[in-house]
Amino acid sequence: MLLLSGITGMSHQDFNIKELVTGILSSGKVALARGITLIESKNTQHRKLADDLLNRLIKRAGNSFRIGITGVPGAGKSTMIESLGLFLVEQRQRKLAVLAVDPSSSISGGSILGDKTRMNRLSNNPNVFIRPTPAGLSLGGVAERTRESIILCEAAGFDTLMIETVGVGQSETAVGSMVDLFVLLMLPGAGDELQGIKRGIMEMADLIIINKSEAGVLDKANEARRNYESALHLFPSKVTGWMPKVLLASALYAENMETISHEMDQFHTHVNQNGYFQSNRVAQDVFWFNDSLGKQLEDFLMANPKLSELKIQLERDVRQGSKNPFTAARELVDGLTKGLIG
Amino acid sequence: MLLLSGITGMSHQDFNIKELVTGILSSGKVALARGITLIESKNTQHRKLADDLLNRLIKRAGNSFRIGITGVPGAGKSTMIESLGLFLVEQRQRKLAVLAVDPSSSISGGSILGDKTRMNRLSNNPNVFIRPTPAGLSLGGVAERTRESIILCEAAGFDTLMIETVGVGQSETAVGSMVDLFVLLMLPGAGDELQGIKRGIMEMADLIIINKSEAGVLDKANEARRNYESALHLFPSKVTGWMPKVLLASALYAENMETISHEMDQFHTHVNQNGYFQSNRVAQDVFWFNDSLGKQLEDFLMANPKLSELKIQLERDVRQGSKNPFTAARELVDGLTKGLIG
Repeated sequence: MLLLSGITGMSHQDFNIKELVTGILSSGKVALARGITLIESKNTQHRKLADDLLNRLIKRAGNSFRIGITGVPGAGKSTMIESLGLFLVEQRQRKLAVLAVDPSSSISGGSILGDKTRMNRLSNNPNVFIRPTPAGLSLGGVAERTRESIILCEAAGFDTLMIETVGVGQSETAVGSMVDLFVLLMLPGAGDELQGIKRGIMEMADLIIINKSEAGVLDKANEARRNYESALHLFPSKVTGWMPKVLLASALYAENMETISHEMDQFHTHVNQNGYFQSNRVAQDVFWFNDSLGKQLEDFLMANPKLSELKIQLERDVRQGSKNPFTAARELVDGLTKGLIG
Repeated sequence: MLLLSGITGMSHQDFNIKELVTGILSSGKVALARGITLIESKNTQHRKLADDLLNRLIKRAGNSFRIGITGVPGAGKSTMIESLGLFLVEQRQRKLAVLAVDPSSSISGGSILGDKTRMNRLSNNPNVFIRPTPAGLSLGGVAERTRESIILCEAAGFDTLMIETVGVGQSETAVGSMVDLFVLLMLPGAGDELQGIKRGIMEMADLIIINKSEAGVLDKANEARRNYESALHLFPSKVTGWMPKVLLASALYAENMETISHEMDQFHTHVNQNGYFQSNRVAQDVFWFNDSLGKQLEDFLMANPKLSELKIQLERDVRQGSKNPFTAARELVDGLTKGLIG
């Protein structure tokens, strides 16, 4: 029941930062789970403790390979995480942490706890840590907490991270800004399932895996692969200099996990050698700094009742086309200056 | 010399808002040019006048079809704007305004003024207004001024707007957030030129025009069209419900301008009928409101020397991996609160 530890009774808990630091650095999963619970807390005092915890651990973080996994519902994301995860842990001696960004993620809520799901075997492995998405947070909030949880998982010695997202919302951009490699799971249907996927995701993918490529649909799967491959050749080249690969696999029968693992290693080596791995991580951190700064400045402004009312009114004017959006923004910031000075 | 009016001696000019409003509403190009000059001014007093001008004109704006045009250097953007523009003005009785977002745009600086360029004929047409990108502003600043200039052009009765961008930087997203239809200019080379284009632009395009499809390269042009068409079928469908079209054309010989114009009309009718046209414009305005709000809040913060120094220091910590990006952002906002209260 590690997965749920700390979720209940959160605000009544006491957190001893020194103990958490020691526990996490010695790879304790209980300490790691408690640390993430602290990070997810909305309590103001907890937030200060969480910042303290993160500042103490950040220099021990960063030593992992972060994999983003997306695909429409039904593409087999949780089965793939289970099969690929087991391969990496059992055959490649990796230590794996699995996180999710969307509240509707397959590892959220009940599904990972039910004994019928394949992820059961993964979650019982001592070298695996699975954490469902926190409930009750906005998408932006969840993304921020997930990015912070990565720091804790890495400090706890997990060298491989999988971050799952559902591929239909805005969360892919957030995940794209926190991972090293982005995997898109597709089906042999060659195109139909794409209609559920958000535009832009194809171009984000470093690896497209046509899952459920099993006996009976191999012709279709190969045709899908050829189609995706020729489409990918029409895309502009990525700044990574990596040409995205299209692979067939069956997560259900754990087929081709070695090929997937091999391509991931190839990618890792490629971006390490050309320096993109490190420069991308720095760029991602600067992105989150500025993104979070903008959001927090807005929160700061909205905490003032008069300004928050003014914002609602100005946004209505903008929606009705009776006020220029930039003028409206200026009026609000002027209100902030006056409100604080006068 | 309408194009340059107001660019020189800007800060010494007096602006009479009432006169500008009257002049713009009676389609005066001199008043329109002066109004845009006012909008582009960095002078604080001018900015207040510009907001006043925009607030007086905004209810008269909106009645136009806004077309974004992008493509790598050499794709023939200015020739296309000239040929398609002349067709729309001469054959379809449109009133056309041409704006640009990037400082490196082909209509910026000297090129539109030289007598060898084809855009000369367009710029001499009484129903056409061409405005080069303002110099000395950041990309974000230019995008904001361009979006505001649209309001003035529409209030002056221009019913067709073309907004040019170079297709290699970040400006396409900005342009995509201010136009109704997005056109990507390609070449018959089928792929090579794509390497210069930023990823994601293909998926933004509503219309792909393979320019320079002239005698001698028609086979290649048709092959390119087939390739793009099959690639587009692999993309997820757009929220507009519009299937992007691929057309061949020669801007130099003004061939197929009627087909392009027809497809643009088809698109316009399509999004008018399904309501996307209006809902997209509202969403765009709300986007700019929030985007501008975030930027202005940051400017407000950076105007304080202590906070701006703190920001530089925190960003350095983030870059070096010694501070969690979110914690750094919180420290800066805490600094703001304390700086203003204490």
